[in-house]
Amino acid sequence: MFFEGSEKKVEMVTAPEAGSLRALGKDFWAGVVAKAQAEILDTISNEHCDAYLLSESSLFVWHDRFLMLTCGTTTLVDATLYFLDHFPLDHILFASFQRKNEYQSHLQKSTFEEDIDRLSKRLEGPAFRLGHLDSHHNYVFHLDKPYQPEADDNTSELLMYHIKGENAEYLRAEGQTVEGIRKLLRLDDILPDFEISDWLFEPFGYSLNAIKGDRYATFHITPQEDSSYVSFETNMDLQKNPVVPVLLEALNPGCWDLIGFNANQVLPEQHDYLCMSRCDLPLNCGYDMRFRHYQHSGHATVKAEKL
Amino acid sequence: MFFEGSEKKVEMVTAPEAGSLRALGKDFWAGVVAKAQAEILDTISNEHCDAYLLSESSLFVWHDRFLMLTCGTTTLVDATLYFLDHFPLDHILFASFQRKNEYQSHLQKSTFEEDIDRLSKRLEGPAFRLGHLDSHHNYVFHLDKPYQPEADDNTSELLMYHIKGENAEYLRAEGQTVEGIRKLLRLDDILPDFEISDWLFEPFGYSLNAIKGDRYATFHITPQEDSSYVSFETNMDLQKNPVVPVLLEALNPGCWDLIGFNANQVLPEQHDYLCMSRCDLPLNCGYDMRFRHYQHSGHATVKAEKL
Repeated sequence: MFFEGSEKKVEMVTAPEAGSLRALGKDFWAGVVAKAQAEILDTISNEHCDAYLLSESSLFVWHDRFLMLTCGTTTLVDATLYFLDHFPLDHILFASFQRKNEYQSHLQKSTFEEDIDRLSKRLEGPAFRLGHLDSHHNYVFHLDKPYQPEADDNTSELLMYHIKGENAEYLRAEGQTVEGIRKLLRLDDILPDFEISDWLFEPFGYSLNAIKGDRYATFHITPQEDSSYVSFETNMDLQKNPVVPVLLEALNPGCWDLIGFNANQVLPEQHDYLCMSRCDLPLNCGYDMRFRHYQHSGHATVKAEKL
Repeated sequence: MFFEGSEKKVEMVTAPEAGSLRALGKDFWAGVVAKAQAEILDTISNEHCDAYLLSESSLFVWHDRFLMLTCGTTTLVDATLYFLDHFPLDHILFASFQRKNEYQSHLQKSTFEEDIDRLSKRLEGPAFRLGHLDSHHNYVFHLDKPYQPEADDNTSELLMYHIKGENAEYLRAEGQTVEGIRKLLRLDDILPDFEISDWLFEPFGYSLNAIKGDRYATFHITPQEDSSYVSFETNMDLQKNPVVPVLLEALNPGCWDLIGFNANQVLPEQHDYLCMSRCDLPLNCGYDMRFRHYQHSGHATVKAEKL
């Protein structure tokens, strides 16, 4: 029942000369997604954005920007290179490629280093690791080109590990429903008025895309007992929308990472957790990257796992 | 400059009918070691034990027991299977096979699971993981046969990560000497009257075997800046010989694991560190296994690492 939930992520911003990325159409994007060994399950759209729910995570396409997350053993680097086949380099204003520490890195089809070796032949840029090699960490590569993000261009990623309690049990149980999961995630509170596209996998697992204007949010839940992982990502301002405390309360993770790009996120006030690692890095493509790894104080006592 | 310091470990106890393991001679043991893709660099002996210092770690052979540690990308499982080729199963009273979490598991020639698949065809027994999958952990497999260890049969392993300070700098510097390293490890204090066999590697790295009667100790130091790792292992009683506080002071690791088999080890009294994970497991081969992962409180602030 092992599944590698941790996502790989690519994000690019294109120049006006590239034309609208949305106008490339669903067939083009299905081709990109196929290169990562995933497929489109559901689509929602508004005036700003097309949000594709994938068999393994998500793709969001705006006129001048796209963002793709894929998990499992998908080959996101292949999708990235395929996209780059269609655009000259001077049409790419910003590009980043991110990977997280994985539960079972040896099961992956490539390492971050191997991905970057291939990307570097097309996009020049530096790569970094934020966080200790022997603990949670985050790898990022970006195009080495000056870029000035808009004031409201920020991204927050909340990666929750070892979820516990009644809601975690529900997510692992048979007979769960989309309505039940929406309720336990308190979507009415945290994503009011968002348009929602969500999917329940067999025997369990849940993905959600949400859009409202040019804002997006996405959830991916792999609830497997020994390797449970829930990711949440959004470009909402989490100082104004304190989503993090709500999700930590709902899912009660043993540990979690909070990653921001030009973002500050509000953590709950009660301090029954510890910051295990903090790493700040101003990237010279215009984003300040912030990595935090927290552990709940009750997480230290571990039952041995029979293999 | 990356090197995987974390050792794999095998330990076996044989029945009197197997004859003396020491009498098998150096050629036999060199053959075992070669199967793991290592070689013997130095040997010391006393009335109880032959201690072989290896190109990648250590082998200790007593009359009725042996213990082998190998690091890097060695194939300890091959050495273990080769040893088993020479003995019927009823000559094996106890066997355990251990692997630690690795910095770069995808560079290893096999996973713990793959090793155990092969071992299980010869030795039946259970396997466990102690500690969280996404953090430090320890895998152990053992022969499923009742065994009663002697009262003084205990093992302690101290695995230190991210060593810092003056001594760490010395270990990473050019021009280091065996005498300098012996002094910084305070061997006169922690291993008084032990016979020592040690080795300085190029450009750095240090291994040590020590024996005194039927007691042993071994150090392996891979000081590489980004992936520094120092292991210490002994069958001394660390309640009577408080070695752990001395080594934590000398090497100032950012985090460390303390693993015991029928052992209790004394930690220093000042609490500028946190226990990140604790896991106790009585193995039905007669040893109580104890896993602890500690992190120094100053270890949370991390500099981003440029790749």
